[in-house]
Parts: sequence; structure tokens; C-alpha cells
Amino acid sequence: MAKYVYLFSEGNKDMRNLLGGKGANLAEMTNIGMPVPRGFTITTEACTNYYENKETISEEITKEILSKVEELENITGKTFGSIENPLLVSVRSGARASMPGMMDTVLNLGLNDEVAVGFTEATQNKRFVYDSYRRFIQMFADVVKGYPKSAFERHLDEVKEKKGAKFDTDLTAEDMVEVTNDFKRIYKEIAGTDFPQDPKVQLIEAVTAVFRSWNNDRAIYYRRMNDIPASWGTAVNVQEMVYGNRGNDCGTGVAFTRNPATGEKKLYGEYLINAQGEDVVAGIRTPEPISKLETDMPEVYKEFVSIATKLENHYKDMQDMEFTIENGKLFMLQTRNGKRTAAAALKIAVDLVNEGMLTEEEALLKVEPKQLDALLHPTFSESALKTSEAIATGLAASPGAGAGKIYFTAEDVIEASKRGEATILVRLETSPEDIEGMNHAKGILTIRGGMTSHAAVVARGMGRCCVSGCGELKIDEIAKTLTTKSGLTLKEGDEISLDGSTGKVYEGILESVEPSISGDFETFMSWADKTRRMKIRTNADTPKDAKQARNFGAEGIGLCRTEHMFFESERIFNFRRMIASETVEQREEALESILPYQRNDFEELYRAMAPYPVVIRYLDPPLHEFLPQEESEIKELANALNMSYDSLKARIESLKEFNPMMGHRGCRLAITYPEIAKMQTRAVIEAAINVHKEGILVEPEIMIPLVGDIHELKYVKNIVCETADEIIRNSGMDIKYQVGTMIEIPRAALLADEIAEYAEFFSFGTNDLTQMTYGFSRDDAGKFLSDYYSKGIFESDPFARIDEQGVGTLVRIAAEKGRSKRPNLSLGVCGEHGGDPASIEFCNRVGLDYVSCSPFRVPIARLAAAQAVIREKGNK
Amino acid sequence: MAKYVYLFSEGNKDMRNLLGGKGANLAEMTNIGMPVPRGFTITTEACTNYYENKETISEEITKEILSKVEELENITGKTFGSIENPLLVSVRSGARASMPGMMDTVLNLGLNDEVAVGFTEATQNKRFVYDSYRRFIQMFADVVKGYPKSAFERHLDEVKEKKGAKFDTDLTAEDMVEVTNDFKRIYKEIAGTDFPQDPKVQLIEAVTAVFRSWNNDRAIYYRRMNDIPASWGTAVNVQEMVYGNRGNDCGTGVAFTRNPATGEKKLYGEYLINAQGEDVVAGIRTPEPISKLETDMPEVYKEFVSIATKLENHYKDMQDMEFTIENGKLFMLQTRNGKRTAAAALKIAVDLVNEGMLTEEEALLKVEPKQLDALLHPTFSESALKTSEAIATGLAASPGAGAGKIYFTAEDVIEASKRGEATILVRLETSPEDIEGMNHAKGILTIRGGMTSHAAVVARGMGRCCVSGCGELKIDEIAKTLTTKSGLTLKEGDEISLDGSTGKVYEGILESVEPSISGDFETFMSWADKTRRMKIRTNADTPKDAKQARNFGAEGIGLCRTEHMFFESERIFNFRRMIASETVEQREEALESILPYQRNDFEELYRAMAPYPVVIRYLDPPLHEFLPQEESEIKELANALNMSYDSLKARIESLKEFNPMMGHRGCRLAITYPEIAKMQTRAVIEAAINVHKEGILVEPEIMIPLVGDIHELKYVKNIVCETADEIIRNSGMDIKYQVGTMIEIPRAALLADEIAEYAEFFSFGTNDLTQMTYGFSRDDAGKFLSDYYSKGIFESDPFARIDEQGVGTLVRIAAEKGRSKRPNLSLGVCGEHGGDPASIEFCNRVGLDYVSCSPFRVPIARLAAAQAVIREKGNK
Repeated sequence: MAKYVYLFSEGNKDMRNLLGGKGANLAEMTNIGMPVPRGFTITTEACTNYYENKETISEEITKEILSKVEELENITGKTFGSIENPLLVSVRSGARASMPGMMDTVLNLGLNDEVAVGFTEATQNKRFVYDSYRRFIQMFADVVKGYPKSAFERHLDEVKEKKGAKFDTDLTAEDMVEVTNDFKRIYKEIAGTDFPQDPKVQLIEAVTAVFRSWNNDRAIYYRRMNDIPASWGTAVNVQEMVYGNRGNDCGTGVAFTRNPATGEKKLYGEYLINAQGEDVVAGIRTPEPISKLETDMPEVYKEFVSIATKLENHYKDMQDMEFTIENGKLFMLQTRNGKRTAAAALKIAVDLVNEGMLTEEEALLKVEPKQLDALLHPTFSESALKTSEAIATGLAASPGAGAGKIYFTAEDVIEASKRGEATILVRLETSPEDIEGMNHAKGILTIRGGMTSHAAVVARGMGRCCVSGCGELKIDEIAKTLTTKSGLTLKEGDEISLDGSTGKVYEGILESVEPSISGDFETFMSWADKTRRMKIRTNADTPKDAKQARNFGAEGIGLCRTEHMFFESERIFNFRRMIASETVEQREEALESILPYQRNDFEELYRAMAPYPVVIRYLDPPLHEFLPQEESEIKELANALNMSYDSLKARIESLKEFNPMMGHRGCRLAITYPEIAKMQTRAVIEAAINVHKEGILVEPEIMIPLVGDIHELKYVKNIVCETADEIIRNSGMDIKYQVGTMIEIPRAALLADEIAEYAEFFSFGTNDLTQMTYGFSRDDAGKFLSDYYSKGIFESDPFARIDEQGVGTLVRIAAEKGRSKRPNLSLGVCGEHGGDPASIEFCNRVGLDYVSCSPFRVPIARLAAAQAVIREKGNK
Repeated sequence: MAKYVYLFSEGNKDMRNLLGGKGANLAEMTNIGMPVPRGFTITTEACTNYYENKETISEEITKEILSKVEELENITGKTFGSIENPLLVSVRSGARASMPGMMDTVLNLGLNDEVAVGFTEATQNKRFVYDSYRRFIQMFADVVKGYPKSAFERHLDEVKEKKGAKFDTDLTAEDMVEVTNDFKRIYKEIAGTDFPQDPKVQLIEAVTAVFRSWNNDRAIYYRRMNDIPASWGTAVNVQEMVYGNRGNDCGTGVAFTRNPATGEKKLYGEYLINAQGEDVVAGIRTPEPISKLETDMPEVYKEFVSIATKLENHYKDMQDMEFTIENGKLFMLQTRNGKRTAAAALKIAVDLVNEGMLTEEEALLKVEPKQLDALLHPTFSESALKTSEAIATGLAASPGAGAGKIYFTAEDVIEASKRGEATILVRLETSPEDIEGMNHAKGILTIRGGMTSHAAVVARGMGRCCVSGCGELKIDEIAKTLTTKSGLTLKEGDEISLDGSTGKVYEGILESVEPSISGDFETFMSWADKTRRMKIRTNADTPKDAKQARNFGAEGIGLCRTEHMFFESERIFNFRRMIASETVEQREEALESILPYQRNDFEELYRAMAPYPVVIRYLDPPLHEFLPQEESEIKELANALNMSYDSLKARIESLKEFNPMMGHRGCRLAITYPEIAKMQTRAVIEAAINVHKEGILVEPEIMIPLVGDIHELKYVKNIVCETADEIIRNSGMDIKYQVGTMIEIPRAALLADEIAEYAEFFSFGTNDLTQMTYGFSRDDAGKFLSDYYSKGIFESDPFARIDEQGVGTLVRIAAEKGRSKRPNLSLGVCGEHGGDPASIEFCNRVGLDYVSCSPFRVPIARLAAAQAVIREKGNK
């Protein structure tokens, strides 16, 4: 029979999958003798069971939970519902992977009318007890029952007004008793039944609520962003309450063993005297720095520092800890590997290696590849910063530069971002509901909350810049305005710039500059480079992108989309002339005028990337994408082309397609218009000859797109080779080139053995391959994929993370079949997936030679490729 | 070393692949002692070699041909270029499969200036010799060199006018000498060189021309229509000339051992006295029936009858023979299994079994499944025929009824057909260039030509109705008019009806009636039914179609496309209301009003098809397909729906997609709008309950379309089962149903094992599967596939004939994986391919349980499924 509930003393840190991260670490801390309030963990398997069991906790598990409650009662000497010595507990979620704030928590569980009376007796603190009780009622109503918080909050505000109280703390013990009674009444009005008085009922309902919260919208969104499978489920931790709000010898805090923004090796955190933990995390009161604890409670501080050091050494990583001080006694509520900025992650990883705590390979696994992105994006230029006056200053919560139009709700940010606007999310304080909006924003600005407030923690995790606790700004959330001390009022849509490294806020958009990379980054990436097996190439269409990517460590161009070269105004005219041509001769003439541009582009690409390889993909998109659609533009083009409006219009109409994604594009264009492939071949080869004369011995890799049948490839390759070989013969030089193909049509993957007889390399175009394999149009899927996520049908976006089962199977089949015919066949990926760490791990596993991604993702890919090798070793 | 050339005496009928059909049969006839002019065959491998060798006949093969010429010279005692006893030959194509008229022929080869003089001496018939010579020059210029025929024809017309000659036969011997000299001059003007005098040069050039003609446009089109691979190539037959035009003891003819229109066991054919073979086939002169030969040349007739009988017994099939009589001596030029109408094919097959010549299985292989189509299409109603007066009568060349607008060129027919018009192709006489137009037309009317003219033979093969040789009509091909004896003039676009069974032509569109099926058809199909393994279902959306299909032998509905039920005007309104709904409640209300219709439709389908199974596919197409696009219609609908124009317009806009084929459709609709699936389930199950009460125990098969992921199916199946089970529980009846899925997304095929855990049946939607596997949009591919055919990239349309390598691999994978999880999984096909014989053979081979096709294709599928079983046995 499965065991679904573990006392903390029964677990350890390696039982993370079963007990969740929080549960495993509470168990571990318990076992190494740290002061942890006693409790037990209900396993993730119980959660899975709950979902399999039509969202019900089975009788068996209920029984096991209640029997663990008895054990806990025995250990603590406290009893559920006891008037003399009541057991009060917190109920918290805790998944395998940390999902801060995503799921639900219930505190003070066990309180009821009788217990409150007895507890008052025992604590001699009526105000504290009824404050706790009313909080519990409100939290239970909100979290467990899903009733509107506002009904309770509104009432509390009314009471405060009536009593002339400004803050909650201004309310007396009797006021709290009154509020508690009122809350019970409001609860009954909404629920139709009394607030439950039986602690066991309260407990089972709270556990159910936590399980249910595993599938709330923000948790689903968070999982999708972080590649966490729904099947993992969450564990639930039931733990004896300790109180940081019982007086001035109490407190609660959060701290990191090192600075999570910079990585500096120094205890970092904050705490509040006489407060509950939720007050710190939610950022409602602005707390004190942890160092002040040394003055306030020197003994406690000393104990805490010693525990922090021990925990870091134990876990061999920077720790993020929550603690509570109850009547002068320290309790550890949580420890986990701390979230950190990319810069901090690198510094910590390098430092831990230097300190001898980690090997290089272990250190490589400590950094989330996606985080590196934050290091590569611009900061504000020195000159812009010098000449600009900040309009406000808050806390430097998450570094980086962010600039855009301000919006006051997550929804507005999402909408504006979808319109293509750069946005800044401005909130009094953020809450977990805002997470999607935070992800869309270029930066986050909050009025309340400290360095470990929700906004700060989440923004650092996302690599998004954040200024928090900027209390000098006045926000009017209804009017959607922000007013500075000097009286400047900014309204929705106005532009500001945020410097997350200094906490400064500027009006307008400041000039930003490219980041410079060095130091820890160089050291760390050098470890990655010597560890990885796969090469990292880049998708680059311009010499500028190519150079950028070289700086970031790219080892070649895996995809040059030649069509992007046609969009400059001079070129587009000739390109349109080519498309509008009615005879082969006209088309050849137009192509002749495009040739010099294209040849010159290739020369520059070769120079920028030498001595690394360059893959050039031939014209791919449907031709109608290049033609104007507006009447006036068509007229203009017709004039310029010396064509009648009607015949140009007819040509444009004739090119329209029902499903352009599956239409006349890719190699199908070269088959209808071989002269295009001929021109592109001339450009590729003549450019190679020209740079050869400079001593740059490039071997161009010509890539034929959208091949589904061997005869397509044969036909186009034949055109390429005839054209190329003649030019090379005439040049008298020894120029080599390769001809390969994209594998992006399912049929090509299935027949890869045939295709490998003619293709010298394969590059998996996983964007199109995903579209065809799923039958999803990327442009249209957005409409229904949101239903897929909310209904739990999809957990991740198959266009972002490769679908290993379906698309991946085709990749594997193609790799095997291809190599069966051509053992030295070069295999790469050039879709979006080339920059996605989980997809890169897959590519490594199936034996691809390289991945190719956008320049900014090159470092991510380098690290992900190294981690893939390390994990593969670990799995053997 | 390969042998590329065979004397007729070296071959036999089993060497068809190497020698082509004509070559193998000439060899066979030679060996069984029939009077065949002597000659040799250049193999199909030589043709393949020609194409591999950049369209050049290799030196090796040239040498072998010339050495065979020497052997032929030895055997015949005649010599190339000899003045006394010249060797003159014909050069004809002959592929493995008969492709009548598709490729090129050259006659009288070996003539030159000197030979003509000597040959005149020998034959004492100067007119004959120079007529032959001028024909040879003209044919060589046209066929071998590709020069315009018109240059020669125009000149001949001028000479005739000058000489006051009405027919060619009015020209004298001296006129022919003059024409010959003129033709040589014209040839030189066009070619820039003299007409070649060396017979060996003539020969090699002619052979080259035949090889080249294997890839002319009409041959490619014919191969695609008839599933003949390009790789087969054609053989070339070089054969001593015999002349049917040397006088009145000469003649030439074509005959069938049985009537190719009816199957009647009676020699059937026609001949012309004093004519060359091409005169009969081209239909230029209207010939005599073969029976008249008995009077004209009793001895020859007797010999011919004896040979015909011997050949039919030898080949165990009805023979189509060409013969020539030269100075009273009979020569057999060709025999082959004759093309025939569907009715004739059935009668002959049944008769040959009754005569003990064939087994039932052998007989089943004698009928081309696609031919059956012709038997199933309407004929004119008795009453329409009684009350209509024919405006003209020609030969009943190919039976059936055809009605439509008249067009005078193949191009015009093709264009009009693409506009959706029913068309009749009217020609003076047809030629191989017309073949695509003939295929598009509903019927063919020619003014000249007999029962074995090009038009008649091709139309019968296609199952297209044809009236030929309707000489009483006057055609003006320039003005595009047709005038009857009574002076009625019909112009392009006017409507006529053709009765191919009587040869009568009517003005206007006559009422037609469904065919009645019985007799030979019943007998023959009963053999097919007891032979085949697979069941044949039908794709039917209406009770009418379902009944039709039952009549044709369908054993269930394999696909009911429920969306087709929404198009009637009353229904479409509610359906549009459903789509335009802004809330779930509105949508449910609209669905509620659709439910009764849909339930009623299902009841009728169940009744029509009982006791066979009915597969109902849930709503599949994108919703925007149902909404109006015109401003005025949108306004109207907005009014009717009580919506503002703007909000309806906005809804329509929001539903538009870039690639609707890969957009929001199929099960994706049911995921976004589960209420649609609920309504459809209610209709399916409630209808089943209603007919159960009548004693019809239907077990509906609910099919979820466009599934690509197991979670999609789980989600929708869950909705279906919850809804269905509740209705069934409440009904208190024992209703069973199945839930299955289409396999039409490549990913579903790759993950079929997972999917089979939830799907009780699979139906392969090979239309969509082909689209996704190739990345071809069916609506757009037409634009570029023509380039694919003309450039030899594709040989057949993957939407018509299943692509075994790609799509077929996915079908095979899905079948294997599906059955690995659910051994009794029912597997079928419901795409267009379900009615295509080659695809059906594939389905049989991979072990599918049934194919489902449109009602008219059911008999085709029954036969094809039987042939598949027989062929499979043969291959074991």
C-alpha cells in the first residue's frame, strides 16, 4: 500500500519528487537538527491520486492524513480543537520545482470559537488571537472557498473608518473580536452555512484547496513558462504555526546567503518585527535589512548566520530562507536554492567553484540557460544616464534597462504588447495574478514592497528589470495616473525608462547600449564550451547579426534567410519586378539586377563568419508576401513597372492562396522559376570566388527549403550544380560547396534515406515541421491554444519547446535514416527550438551536430548544450 | 552486356516489360505462325538508357540497331536504300501498357529519291510510290523534326486547288511527283538542310523521336490518368512496310473479336479498301463494316476469322487487331487485349467464364474497376427520349448519356469545366492533343470518324459517352457553330444532349434517369464480393446518398460529414446564430434549435443503412466557412440576429485565418465550444434511441476529427461519453456506441498506440493526411503541380492515388501501433483514396478493414478490393 503522508522526520532532501521541494527541505532541516516547527507532508502522489479520482481526496488518504494529525498531536503535546493547548497549523503547497506564490496557503488553521477563547487565556493576548482568527476566516473564505476577498476587506475598511483607525494595528482587541464575528456572519451569508468549527474539516478542505490550486490559471501559465509537467502535482505541508506577530520579541523575515542580484558573498535579506511572514513576501510593509537584526536581537542573528552558513554548505548552493522569531526563539520555515539574477548566478557559480564547493560541471548545472539572456540585453548608455534626471527612485530589485509605455493592469500590458508596444507594468504591488503581464512587460515598477517582494522575486527569475518599493510615487489605479513628488503626472500610455540596477525611474525612453561581456561570464562559458559536444551556429541574415553572434560565440551561420535581403527599398523594387514578370526573359532581367546586391551580401556574410561555415537557404516564402496590397501602392508599382494596373492586379490576385503556408513556396518556387535558383547560385558562388581572392576559403552550404520528395531535390540540385560548376570551371579556382536540404515536411523525414543520397546535409526546420506534424498554423493557433492550456490539453507551446513524441520522432527517424545512407551526414536544427534549452537537450540526445539560433540565444544554447552532455552522463 | 534489340522471332508474349505490348505480341504472333511483316523491337531498356544518357541513343545501341537492320535485310532479302529491292519500314512506339495514339509513328521509312525511282519500276505504280514518299517527308518533318504540319498541308491544298482536285485521290502520279519535290523544298527551307537520304540516318532519327515522344505532354497526362510510371519507357518496333493502298486488292482494317461496346460475341470492325492504316484510325474516311470483307475478299475474310479466333483463345481475352491486305495477302500488324465499354467488359468477362475460357478470379482481373463508373451514371429517361426529336444521328461510339454546353476546342472545354459548367466537346475529328479536354467533357461529338476512330476508342476507355462520325452536321470551327440538315445553327455555349448508346444528338438538356443494375453486373460483382476481404462503406451525408450507396452495395457509412447537414436555409440561420453567439448560453440556445434537425437526419441515415454501421464525424470545418462575406449579407444576418452590423462584422473578422486548413477546426472546435459536441452527441444518441424503438439496433460510431494529441481525444471523448451515458441511462434502453477518431494529422499516426487506448476505431482521413505529410494545400497545389508533372517530378496526383512511400508509411505505422494496443481496432479509409483502385490495393495490403468512398465509387471499390486479394495471392 502506498504511503501518502510523511512526518518531517521521515523524509530527506532526496525525496523531492515525492515531498516537493519545500517538504524535502523541511525534512532535511529537521534531520540535521535545525529549529523547524513540527509537521508532515502529504505527497505529490496524493495530488495525482486526487486528480485521477475526479478531484476528490480518497477515503484512504483522508484517513492517513488524520492519523498523521494524531501523531503530530502526540509529538507536540497539542491537540486539534483543544481549549487548553490547541494545535494550530499552516497548510502550504510545495511542488517539486519552486513555483513561488503560484499556489495557495492557509494559516492559523485549527482556530475556532472555543479555541480562540482558550488560546486567549494561554497567550494573554486577545488582540493577537482574534486578529489571527479573523485572518484565518478571510483566508479560508478566499483560498479554500473561492469567495471574494473584497467582501471582507471592504468590511474591515468600514470598521477602521468607524473607529477612526488608520492602520490595522490601530484596532483594539475588542475591535478584532467584533471583526471576527462580523467575518463569520459575512462568511455565512455567502456560504449559506456556518464557518466550519471542526479543525479536521478545516484541514481536509484546505488540503483540497491546495491540490486544486495546482491547476489554477497562473500555475498553468507558470508551468508552461518553466517547462514543468502537470503530471508532477504538488505536495502539501502541514506545519505547526509559529507566530512572528505576538509582540516585539517576535518577527519574521526572508534572507539569502548571498546577494541574489549581484552574487556578492554576504547575507542579504530583510525582516519585520511583530509581523507574519505573508507581510514580508507580499510587500505590504517595507521591511528592515537583515543586518539590523544583529542590533535588534544579537543572539538570534548569530544563530541565524550560523544556520545560513550550514545550509549553504549542505546544499552547495546559495539558499533562500524564511524564518520566524516567536518570543525570541528562531524557527526556520523554509530553505531552498535561491532565485537569482543572471549576473548573480554566474558570479555564485564561479565563486563556488573557486571556493572548492562545486566542480565546474556541477556549477554549469546551477545556472538556468534562459537567464543568460538578461546579461546580453542593453543597459542605458552612460551619456543618457548622465544627462537625465530621475523622476523617482525605488529599490533596485532586478537589474537591466526597461523602457516603454506605462500600463496599470496586467491585462492592459498584455493587450498593448500584442499590439507590438513596449510596455512597463506599474502596480501598487504585484500579486501572482499579474504574472503573465509581468512576462510581457519590458520592466516592472511597484510602489510598495521590498527586495524580496513578489515583484522583485518574480522579475529576477524572469530576467526582467524591476524597480520596487518606489513609495515616493503616488499611484491612482482608477484614474490610471502616477504622480511624482515634484507634481509631474504621467498617464496611461506615457513613456518611462526603468533602471533596475539603480532603482531609478526616468521620463521618456533613454538611449540604451549593448552589454559588454567579460569576467565571470567568460570563465563560465569557457567551461560550457569545453563540455558540450554540439556546435552552436546562428540564424543571421545580415553581416551585423553575424558579427553580433560571433561575439556571443556562434560557430557558423546555420540559416541565412535570403529573402530578408530583398526588403530594402531599392531591392524590393527589382524583386517585385521579378515577381510581376510575365515571361522568363523579363524575370531573368529583373533577377540580373538583384544579383549584385545578393552577391555582395554573401561576401560580407562570409567575411563576418570566416572561417566558420555559412548555410544559405534559397528563396522560401510565397511570392505574394512581397507584393503590395493597397490600391494606391499597386498603382504606383504598376506605373514603375510600366504595366497596366489591371494586369498587375491580376498577377497579385493569381498569387493569392488559401493556405499560403502549404502553398507555392520553398523549393516549389525554384521548380516553377528555375531562374531564381540560378541567380541565387551565381550570387553564392561568385561571392565565394571573390572572398577566396582575399584568402577567405569559404565552402558555402546551399540549402534547398521545403523538400518533400527526392525528385524536388534532384531537380533543384541539378540547377544549382550546373550553374555553380560552370562558374567555378570558368574561374579556374578550387571552390567547394555543399548542397543540402531543410527537413521540415513530414514526408521528407519519413523518406530521409532517399533524400540523403542527394543531400550533403540536413537542417531540421522544426518550425514548419511542427506546423505540419500537428496540422497547426502558427499564425492561427494562438486563437485556440489558450483553450488548450486552460483545459490542460497542452502544457507547453510546441513552437517554443520541441514536441519530442511527435516532431521529435520524425527528427529521430530522419537522423537515423539519413545517416544509414550517408554516415557523415551533417545534422542541425535551425528552427526556434535551436535556442530552447529543453529542445537543445533533445537535439544532443538524438545526436545532432549543431543547433542554430538567433544571435542573442547563442550563449543560452552553449550552456544548454553543455548541460545536456552533463545530464546525459548522469543518466548513464 | 545488355541486349537492346530483338528480332520478332526472338521474343514472346511474356516479354511485355522489355518489348512493350505491341512488340511482345508481334513476336508471339510470329512464333505461332501468323502472317506478320518481319521486323525487330528496340527494348524499353534502350529507352531508359536514352533518358539516362541525356536524351541520346548510345553508340552501343546505335550499333546494335544497325546490325539488326542487317539481319532483317538478310531475312527479307531487301536492303535499305536498294533501288531494285528496297527495305521500307514502319517505326512505331509500343509501351508495356497500351497508350493508343499517345506516342509517335513514322511510316514508309527508307524512301529516298533513288529508292523512289527503283520502287516505281518494281511496283509499276508511280502515283502510289510518290504519294508514299510525300507522306513520309511530311510525317518525318512533323514527328521526327517537330516542324509545323500546316506548312505541308497548306501547300497540298494549294496544289489541289490549282489542279482542280477535290480529294487527294484526284491528284495524278505527276502531281504527286511535283508535291514530293515541293515538300523536299519546304523541308529544306525550314530545316536549313536537305531531307535526309540515308535510310539509316532516317531510322536512328525516327527511333529517337519515338523515345522523345514518351515524355510529350499528352503521354505524361495519359500516364498520370492511368497510373503508368514514367520509368517504364517505351519500346520501338521497326517493321517491314506492307501497303493497303496499292490498289483495289489492297486494304486495311481494325477489328475486335467481340463487340467492344456491348460485348456481343461477334467479329466487329471496319476496313477501307485501298487505304493505309492511319486512314482508318484517324477516322478521315468513314470505313465499311468488317462483315462486308466477306463479300469483297472471301478468302482473306476466312483467314482473318480463323486468326481472330485463334488469337482470342490464345490470349484468353477479346482481341483488338490491325491488319493490312497487300495485293490480296493478309498481314497482321497488331493484336492486343481490346479496350471496351464497362458493359462490354462485364459481358465478356462473364461469357468467357461461361465458355470455360477463364476462372472467375481471372475474369475479375479483366475488368478495369474505374470503368464500372460508366455503368452507374444516368441514361436519358424513356419519356424524355420519346418526346424529343433528335436533331442529328451519328455512330453510337461510346454508350451513356451526356449533356452540356458545346465547345469547339479542348482548351475551351477545360476552361468551362473549371468554371463548373457541364460541357460537350464538339470536333471535326479528335486527335491525341484533345485528350485532356475529352476527359473534362461530359460527352464527345465528332463529325468524321468511325467506331474505331480516335474519339470512339478513347471515349470508351474513359467511360465517356461519344457520338462519332455525325457527318450530317456541318461544323464551322472558326465561327464555332454547328448546323443541322434542317438549318438549325448551334453556337458555342448552346446546350445539347448526346446519347452514346444510339448515336442520337438532341437540342437542350434531356432528363436523365438512374441506371438499373442487373444481369452480368450482378453476377460479376457477386464474384468480387466473395473474393474480397475488405468491407466497402460509403461517404454519405444524406439519406438519399445512403440509399444510392446501398443499391451499389455499400456495407455501412464510413463518413457522414455532419456539417453538410447545416446548409439548408432554415438550418444555416440557426447555425450562423450559433457561430455569432457571444456567450455560452446564447450558443447553447442556438444549438438547441439545431438539435431536432440533426437528430432527424441521423434517424433517417440509420434507417437507410440498417443493419450496417454508421460513422458520424463531428463538426470539422472552420466556422468562418459558414458565415457570409458580402456586406449586404452581413447586414441582413445582423438584422436577423438582432446584432449590430459592427459586432457581427467584428466576429466574422475575428474568425478569419491565415491558413484555415491548419486552423481552428476539427476537434479544436469541440475543445473551444464543448457545447457543440454535446449537442451532436445528443442528436446521435437520441436518434439511436428513437430508431431502436422501431427495432433498428444501430450502434453509432462517433468520430472525432483532426486529433493530433491524446489529450484532445480524451477531452472530447469525455464530453461525448458523459452526455451519451446520461441520455442512455435516462432512456432505460441498452444503446451501444463507439468513439473513434480520424487519423489525418501526421502526429496522430506517429502516436497511434497512445491514441488507440482511447479510440475504438481509426478512420484514415487521407485527404488531410496527404496535405500535412506533403505540406501541400489541396486548394493551392493545383498552381504548381502542373509544373511538377511537366518536369517529371510527380507522376501521379497524390490526392487521387495514395502516396505509398510517405502517406502510406504513416498509415502503416498507425495501423501497426494502433493494433499493438488494441488488437481488434477497426481500421478504415475515408478520404478520396477510398475509391481509387491503386489506393484500395494498398489498403488491402496493409490490412485495413474497410474503405469508404462516394456512392458511385462503391462498385469500383468492391472490384478493386477483390482484385487486390487476387493479386496478393499471385504475389505469394
